[in-house]
Amino acid sequence: MAQVSAELQRELISVAHELADAAREATLAHFRAPDLTADTKETERFDPVTIADRQSELRMREILARRRPDDAILGEEMGQQAGSSGLTWVLDPVDGTRSFLAGTPTWGVLISVADDSGPLYGLIDQPYIGERFEGGFGIARMAGPHWTRPLRTRAPRPLAEALILSTFPEVGTPEEGAAFHRLAKQCRLTRYGTDCYAYALLAAGHIDLVVEAGLQAYDVQAPIAVIEAAGGVVTDWTGAPAHQGGRVLAAANPGIHAAALVVLAG
Amino acid sequence: MAQVSAELQRELISVAHELADAAREATLAHFRAPDLTADTKETERFDPVTIADRQSELRMREILARRRPDDAILGEEMGQQAGSSGLTWVLDPVDGTRSFLAGTPTWGVLISVADDSGPLYGLIDQPYIGERFEGGFGIARMAGPHWTRPLRTRAPRPLAEALILSTFPEVGTPEEGAAFHRLAKQCRLTRYGTDCYAYALLAAGHIDLVVEAGLQAYDVQAPIAVIEAAGGVVTDWTGAPAHQGGRVLAAANPGIHAAALVVLAG
Repeated sequence: MAQVSAELQRELISVAHELADAAREATLAHFRAPDLTADTKETERFDPVTIADRQSELRMREILARRRPDDAILGEEMGQQAGSSGLTWVLDPVDGTRSFLAGTPTWGVLISVADDSGPLYGLIDQPYIGERFEGGFGIARMAGPHWTRPLRTRAPRPLAEALILSTFPEVGTPEEGAAFHRLAKQCRLTRYGTDCYAYALLAAGHIDLVVEAGLQAYDVQAPIAVIEAAGGVVTDWTGAPAHQGGRVLAAANPGIHAAALVVLAG
Repeated sequence: MAQVSAELQRELISVAHELADAAREATLAHFRAPDLTADTKETERFDPVTIADRQSELRMREILARRRPDDAILGEEMGQQAGSSGLTWVLDPVDGTRSFLAGTPTWGVLISVADDSGPLYGLIDQPYIGERFEGGFGIARMAGPHWTRPLRTRAPRPLAEALILSTFPEVGTPEEGAAFHRLAKQCRLTRYGTDCYAYALLAAGHIDLVVEAGLQAYDVQAPIAVIEAAGGVVTDWTGAPAHQGGRVLAAANPGIHAAALVVLAG
């Protein structure tokens, strides 16, 4: 990991919050609007992109052009932009566009800054509820409508007492789905439909496991920063680094992470 | 339906909001608390009851004892209490206890007042987000953290463009689940995990269908009042009244309700 001075850390945190504030405004201008429509990016499946996604990323890129012109950017909607500083901003302007379209409040804005080793600092913002979960550079904290609290993942417990979350019951390919359901059946409670909000709940100590497949780097880097800062573990389904996406296992602690890995491996 | 004077309507609306304010306080005292635990009411399946459910209903019953002593009460946690006025308060102090336990913000407090014909007025309150959806006695309105708006369900559209929500992918028995999935496959987008919040989203015009099975009267009476006031239709899966619970089909308009009934009937 690159050495990031305390001064630079403060600068990056300040930029991240400015990005999140702008994204909050851009997304709330369209969330639950009567005329919200979705285009489809791919022809073979329903992959909705809304004006909110595009406006949110555009606003964030404008801020980065002004405040961090030498950093690289990887964003869901507008792709990769090279930089010279060794730092990359990884942006998902609306994670959970389906949730956004349905009006449910479990979508979020994902913002993180990474070096070659992976994410250094990240935040998960839920604009409608007004919640922000952040982690990295010595911070692990959430601020919401009712309280501001440190983030701390759950204590170890057996799988039989665990709460597990995923966005879709299918969880990727049929093989990936079978592995997920093998694990979910051993847990106490399974819930769906949570998008990136599941990672926030894991960091805040309310659930034990999040398992997903087919993720992109921009889906997972902010969650990794927040969860690791709160004491959790995020890897792929073999225990290797997950910051390029793919199959992701996020766990509240090393004990339940190890137990889940065994079941996912079959 | 009994004749309810304008004065009595105002009184009942005022009581409902006092109940919801008390339930908001009682539930938020425990939501996301580190020591929240769940007892199991039934032995054969996981049916969590938390202290929040009990405190929330207790607070509401205290208010009713003072303000509406002659009304009957049906509550999830403390059962039936007889009355002499011909009116019954139907209370679900925490609808979506699993969601409450997992920290997701899609649980809610359901409050309605009914006569022999069914619910007259109801509200769906989400204490953490600070949202209240109400309908009946000429009102159809939501108040939340960012805006207060009239409630109006979605305009008719084909099933192929519809958004459908349910809480669990299983949706009741295997037969009920098969009927649900036959319908969901014809829709554009299916989401899970929404509890009573799905009915609020339907009333607010964001989705087209909610389909559930195995519901109780206290799960559905407040949603019926809110959705009907907003222009939607709620029945069982045969088109008969649903206010006693069971299999529930909530639809944004008569057109999509009819289309969904046909598919559910097989």
